[in-house]
Amino acid sequence: MAAAAAAREDETASYMQQFDGRLNKYDFHLEEIPRLSHKDRRAEALIAAEKPVVLTGTSLVKTALKWSLPYLEANLGSGDCNVYESKTNRFKYYDDKKLTSTPDFKFVPPTHLRQMTFSEFVTELRQCEKNPKRKKRVYLQQPLNDTVGPAIVRDFVHFDWEWLRENQSRCNWGPLTSNLLLVGMAGNLTPAHYDEQQNFFCQVEGQKHCMLFAPDQFENMYPYPIGHPCDRQSQLVLEEPIDSNVFPNVSKLRGVHTVVGPGDVLYIPMYWWHQIQSLADGEHTTSVTFWYRAGPSPKEIKWPLSVEQKVAVTRNIEKMLHEALKDPNEVRHVLRMIVDGRYSATNWKTPYEGMEKPV
Amino acid sequence: MAAAAAAREDETASYMQQFDGRLNKYDFHLEEIPRLSHKDRRAEALIAAEKPVVLTGTSLVKTALKWSLPYLEANLGSGDCNVYESKTNRFKYYDDKKLTSTPDFKFVPPTHLRQMTFSEFVTELRQCEKNPKRKKRVYLQQPLNDTVGPAIVRDFVHFDWEWLRENQSRCNWGPLTSNLLLVGMAGNLTPAHYDEQQNFFCQVEGQKHCMLFAPDQFENMYPYPIGHPCDRQSQLVLEEPIDSNVFPNVSKLRGVHTVVGPGDVLYIPMYWWHQIQSLADGEHTTSVTFWYRAGPSPKEIKWPLSVEQKVAVTRNIEKMLHEALKDPNEVRHVLRMIVDGRYSATNWKTPYEGMEKPV
Repeated sequence: MAAAAAAREDETASYMQQFDGRLNKYDFHLEEIPRLSHKDRRAEALIAAEKPVVLTGTSLVKTALKWSLPYLEANLGSGDCNVYESKTNRFKYYDDKKLTSTPDFKFVPPTHLRQMTFSEFVTELRQCEKNPKRKKRVYLQQPLNDTVGPAIVRDFVHFDWEWLRENQSRCNWGPLTSNLLLVGMAGNLTPAHYDEQQNFFCQVEGQKHCMLFAPDQFENMYPYPIGHPCDRQSQLVLEEPIDSNVFPNVSKLRGVHTVVGPGDVLYIPMYWWHQIQSLADGEHTTSVTFWYRAGPSPKEIKWPLSVEQKVAVTRNIEKMLHEALKDPNEVRHVLRMIVDGRYSATNWKTPYEGMEKPV
Repeated sequence: MAAAAAAREDETASYMQQFDGRLNKYDFHLEEIPRLSHKDRRAEALIAAEKPVVLTGTSLVKTALKWSLPYLEANLGSGDCNVYESKTNRFKYYDDKKLTSTPDFKFVPPTHLRQMTFSEFVTELRQCEKNPKRKKRVYLQQPLNDTVGPAIVRDFVHFDWEWLRENQSRCNWGPLTSNLLLVGMAGNLTPAHYDEQQNFFCQVEGQKHCMLFAPDQFENMYPYPIGHPCDRQSQLVLEEPIDSNVFPNVSKLRGVHTVVGPGDVLYIPMYWWHQIQSLADGEHTTSVTFWYRAGPSPKEIKWPLSVEQKVAVTRNIEKMLHEALKDPNEVRHVLRMIVDGRYSATNWKTPYEGMEKPV
């Protein structure tokens, strides 16, 4: 992180100061994510090292910077979009498929997915903005696919694919899997979670507060069990006091953060936790994501494993246990059975070993 | 266990009374293992249900009942035998291969393996018996193989293979893997462990106190970690007071027991813990084991899994973690990372979920 430290010193020292008083207060330590020109070698080094960085001055989605609501309404086409509705500002993701496969969790979906045209969405958005007492919020989260109109296709074709390919190749990433168009209301919040893909998160309209937590924060973030519909999401509500009896590691939690505005590209490395909130005192926000699969596994495995590799091992072990046992209570039981009183170095040599016993 | 209960009532009620004062005292509850004629249908039912039972009146190793030390000395052949030496009466098994592959455990072998002819073993045995102050004990544990002399081969051929095949077939066991000849000194103790095979344990000379613990006692027996040379062995020293701070489940421990004498056959089901001690006030003891592999896995898996299946799942998960991480401290860390604060039903729904938050 030498590059990051240097970068923070000379360019980002006071960037976050301008948002004083406009962001939520958090109990944990938050360091600033460096903001660097995309041409800066230090930015490249950070991406290669899988550390978050805000890239400025890219042309990545330059052609999307004109994607105002009227422009999108006119050009996105008449296909249906995914729009989440929530009674709160929290839009916690959940996996529909796990909703029915694991009834044991007794999970009640916190948001509701609706399909509507972009035009219908804009109408909904305006109504929600006008009537905050209705306690209804909407968040459009729609993959960019081939139903979009010709103007959007043209904008899309002129994204900076060359720059993307350079990064993909230098970092040995796998293929691009999807681009998500996100249009949310001021204050909308996507709670802390991690993805199993690399992400260039491009801000188009409005400002978003992005908090990231390194993969080594796994134990401090308390993700839901893997079979839970909220797999990969933290159980913590970072905006509220957290019970340290329930989540004792919370005092060790530390993250990094930034605010992204139009034209900024935030690199969110794979397995990094992220929570993203549209600034509450702003307008609606528009963002576009570029998700890339991880590259092939290294041919030679080195020990000790990296934190990222350990998270992957953890996920595989948990998946197998979940599939073998089905019931999360059984998974807990078996995990406790493996670890409790057994993986304790002091127990491995019993105090009587090698001593003469009366026969 | 209806058959077992009935059997205990009418035939075994007072069997163990004759050993009052001759056995170690244990803090945990021990029920008597039923003793039943091998012709008794209830015995067959117990074997089929994988419950321990002492079978009386079998001809299984009738031809071995004459295997006195002089007879074995004269007929076993001049090949080398495995003889374990110990400074105590405890002959805890350990896996040589894991001794070097997992140096992290800092394990000091409690016994020493030597190779010697049976004749040399008898000389050692007699010397150890004469000089208890030397604090040296020996235990012969030798697979019966094709180096044995013709008289032993004849005896072996006349074991009751037909009866074995009937059991194997009725219970759907896999193939016979080995027969171990055990010759030990009075008081020699094989500490509690479980095997991944079915076992007909045949007593030939002398008497042995056998304590068994069901597979559901896994959590109460605290086996060593899987990578430890003492994998499948309990960390508990049952003859000593056990620290309930270190091993809190020890108060829940409960087992079954019996004493076997010449001609008795104890069925030790797969995954059942067993600790076997030659009676301290007796002579040397001789036993022969018949180990069978488990049958094929059932085609249809039913949930919830049986305790035996859970132990198997546990072993597989532990093996994978051990192989992925190499270091037992890392295994502990990852196991804690998976379970702590995550597999707790009360955490799965955060208290703030679905409540309106100030934005």
